[in-house]
Order: sequence, then C-alpha cells, then structure tokens
Amino acid sequence: MTTATEPARRGRPGYDRDSMLEVVVEVFNERGYDAASLGSIAEKLGLSKSAIYHHFASKEQMLEVALGRALDALEAVFESPEATTGPVVSRIRHVVRGAVLVLCEQMPFVTLLLRLRGNTPIELEAMRRRREFDRKLRALFELSRDEGTLRADMDPRIAERLTFGMVNSIVEWYRPGGSITPEQLADSVLELVRTGLRDPASL
Amino acid sequence: MTTATEPARRGRPGYDRDSMLEVVVEVFNERGYDAASLGSIAEKLGLSKSAIYHHFASKEQMLEVALGRALDALEAVFESPEATTGPVVSRIRHVVRGAVLVLCEQMPFVTLLLRLRGNTPIELEAMRRRREFDRKLRALFELSRDEGTLRADMDPRIAERLTFGMVNSIVEWYRPGGSITPEQLADSVLELVRTGLRDPASL
Repeated sequence: MTTATEPARRGRPGYDRDSMLEVVVEVFNERGYDAASLGSIAEKLGLSKSAIYHHFASKEQMLEVALGRALDALEAVFESPEATTGPVVSRIRHVVRGAVLVLCEQMPFVTLLLRLRGNTPIELEAMRRRREFDRKLRALFELSRDEGTLRADMDPRIAERLTFGMVNSIVEWYRPGGSITPEQLADSVLELVRTGLRDPASL
Repeated sequence: MTTATEPARRGRPGYDRDSMLEVVVEVFNERGYDAASLGSIAEKLGLSKSAIYHHFASKEQMLEVALGRALDALEAVFESPEATTGPVVSRIRHVVRGAVLVLCEQMPFVTLLLRLRGNTPIELEAMRRRREFDRKLRALFELSRDEGTLRADMDPRIAERLTFGMVNSIVEWYRPGGSITPEQLADSVLELVRTGLRDPASL
C-alpha cells in the first residue's frame, strides 16, 4: 500500500485512490449508500476526514467513481465488435459471458450499482446507463426472435429480464476465489440460457 | 377497508390487521426495515402509534407476521405431495412454478424476505427457513443428476443458485396486473430452465 514517496504516517495504513475506493465501496455495500457517513468511512479506513479529502472531494464523488468502474466495464462488453457484429446468437453469447465475468471481477462495484435506490442525480444517471444494457440485450433477443433462433413461445422482453435476473443474482451468492471459477460460472449460465438444464437424451 | 362493525373514525382510514400489514410492508420495502420507524409507519397509515398497537405489539412483530406470510406460502410449495413424490423432474417443475406464483402473488412480502440484512433474531430465523428452500431444490437437482436427467456438465449447486436467482429476480422487475400474467411468467421460467431459449430447430 505504501510507496517510497508516500510513506504511512504514524502506523496508519497508506491508501492510494483505488485501494481507498475498495474500502469505501465495502462500507457503502454494508450500510447502504444513504446510511454510510463520511465519519463511518473514515473510521473503517483508520484515517481522518481530511486525509480522505486528499483523494475524494465528497461522498458523492466516491459513489460516482465507484459506479463508473462497474458501468465502464459493462459498457465495454456491449460496445465490443463481438457484441455489435456477426451472428445474433454469438452476440448474445458474448454479452452474457462478458456480463458474468465483469460481475465476478468487479463484484463489489456491480453490487453497489445493482442496489441503488435512485435518491440522487448520480444514482439516477447510473440507473439510466444500466437500463441501456437491458435495452441492448432486449434488442438482441428481438433480432433472435425475428430470425427464428429464439424459441417462438418466448417473449423477448421476458427472455431479457430472466437472463439478466439470473446474471445479476450472482452478486448475491458467488464468492470469488472459491471452488467455482468465473469461467465455469459463465459457461453454466450460457448453457442454461442456450439449451436449459435437462440432459438432451432425457428430453 | 372499513366494515360495519369497525367504522373509520373522524375520516381516518380503517384498517384490519391484514390491510395494515400491507401498508407496513410497503414502508419496510421503501425505507429498509432498519430505517423504518414506527413514527414513519404511523404517518403513512394516517394513524396514531396507539392505534397501531391495537393490531401489533411492536415493529418486530410486524416483521415476523409479514415474513411468515412469505415463508408459509413458499413452504407450502415445497411440502406439497407434488414436491415430495413422483418423478424428480416433475417435482422440480412443481417447485419452480410454485415459487414463481408465490412471488407474483405475495410480491411485497417476498421482496421483504429477499432484502433482509440479518440484524435481528427474527431476520436470522427467516433467513434460516429461506436457506431450507435452497437446500431442498439443490437436493432435487442432485437426484436429477444421479438419475441422468440433469445435463452432465452442470453442477447441481450452480443449477440451484441460477434457477432461484432467476426466480428471485422477478421481484425486481415484474409488475402484477401488467401485460404478463403470473402463469405466463411461470411458463417462461420453466421453459428456460428446462430447455433454454434457443429454438430447437436452430440448435
């Protein structure tokens, strides 16, 4: 944590902006953003409020930077060429796999995003960006229905909601570093979405 | 809301215990159980605190009764003969369909259950009962794997988590009374879980 140019003073932990943000997001997720005070953040960090202000101007700015990490990573998935060109089913696979991997890699930041209440302009803007992901996946499922690769008895809106509902639920139970790897989890989600849980021979 | 034997006094709304509980759960879900004060509940009801005490001894009791509604309904699904006897895949179908219908019918109560933080003994006991559902569905997926009806490349634990993750996500986006009926939603969830989203002819 400490560097030659920024030694820890009097035994207090030294933080750069990124490592401070990780602790801040932990407090946000534990207490809820509204209930998390700058005082409780300072206590968790073992720092004075003025030491925090060296890195962040306000609690709002911490939220904005933290949400940006989740949203930028998710937007990168949707904006990559694999998501915008090629066969529709490949694009859906790319988006679902990419979203699962971002959730696993940026779990605290995505958890924060998914639990927003929408009480501030920063939250509302993040929720607007999040709704864009829903819209883009729904559009892909509509294309899939039009070309006949989505089963005919499935409403593309429901397909989108259930798919992202399943993906988003991962933050509630997945533990990074456990026996299930992010890649294995992404494979399982894709197989469930694509062809379901039943063994093909038993259909 | 008012009855012949229990007229509204001085224009204030008359509540029986059930209709009061519905408003209480609305406040719990809006503000979070911890943050919801008896004062804010009284304000929302348009009643004095003493009028509330006529029906409930405490905020804790309101929580206990509300969680009981969700848990009793879900337990009834898991304890019915269709969930405990017969072919394993039929049991899984019964449990998944039943859980979706309970979520749609008891949405505010299940929402409360799913958002618990576990800060009180009542919450911890509800979370214990909730984990029993996970355990029972996981046991069914394990039976399904053993008999070969669950696809061989799917871990029963992941199958359970993803299935209930998808089911639980319904409280985040489903609007009762809208264009999608609970039955239609249950059918869609079952079809996705069983054989996925892809049109069989395009596999």
